[in-house]
Amino acid sequence: MIRILCVGKLKEEYLKEAVKDYLKRLSKYTKVELIELKDSNINNEKDEIQKYLKTNDYIISLAIEGKELNTLEFKKMIENNFINGNSNITFIIGGSDGIHEEIKKLSNEKISFSRLTYPHGLFRVILLEQIYRCFKIMNGEAYNK
Amino acid sequence: MIRILCVGKLKEEYLKEAVKDYLKRLSKYTKVELIELKDSNINNEKDEIQKYLKTNDYIISLAIEGKELNTLEFKKMIENNFINGNSNITFIIGGSDGIHEEIKKLSNEKISFSRLTYPHGLFRVILLEQIYRCFKIMNGEAYNK
Repeated sequence: MIRILCVGKLKEEYLKEAVKDYLKRLSKYTKVELIELKDSNINNEKDEIQKYLKTNDYIISLAIEGKELNTLEFKKMIENNFINGNSNITFIIGGSDGIHEEIKKLSNEKISFSRLTYPHGLFRVILLEQIYRCFKIMNGEAYNK
Repeated sequence: MIRILCVGKLKEEYLKEAVKDYLKRLSKYTKVELIELKDSNINNEKDEIQKYLKTNDYIISLAIEGKELNTLEFKKMIENNFINGNSNITFIIGGSDGIHEEIKKLSNEKISFSRLTYPHGLFRVILLEQIYRCFKIMNGEAYNK
């Protein structure tokens, strides 16, 4: 299972629709759970995030200082830890103030999608799309749109 | 003026809504024109793109091998060529096969938003958001969502 922990509610209707669309597309391949945590200060958010972290999970923090991967490297990471391994994967998207250092420290990976700062709402869609892209590639289906 | 040349029509309603939203938000700061060119082969797309390129424009191709900027560097590039300079800026987003080499060669810059491959529809939203973010920063308005 893939779990995405994110902070704050989506405001824009089009972002909600986009998230819904990718969750639906992904349901063909795997269970993806998106959990919206309450937008608060970084310490409270840390506590909320920790409630959902399990020892066996492969935990990935999305952080601007993280390692930048290309799509095939990202796919390989998912494959190694999910398809070949037995772990669930948990992605963490921080709120406006980012992710607490303690959470980053206990993560298995810190990865960055870009040197640019994206809004966290739009970033959910970007992450879901990239996970979807990986499953399409893993299943030998063309994905080029 | 900022012009965005992109290939192909958006299919998803939520992407159309997102583009509309950012164009509306940006209209407060500057004129942004988004031109959708016919999805075809890379040579025809090249001819279509060239019709819209003017000698004085500052032309930026979005290409995965381009230079990666962070948000402040991106903002600086817009500032230098638009606010301080007298140029219009033209961004080019290619279709499924990318951007023709000739177009890349005549561009002033090749920039990349990520090492990851994004779908070109979603990428329009990402680019518009980042341009919007720059104008917010340039105008001293907080932008952190």
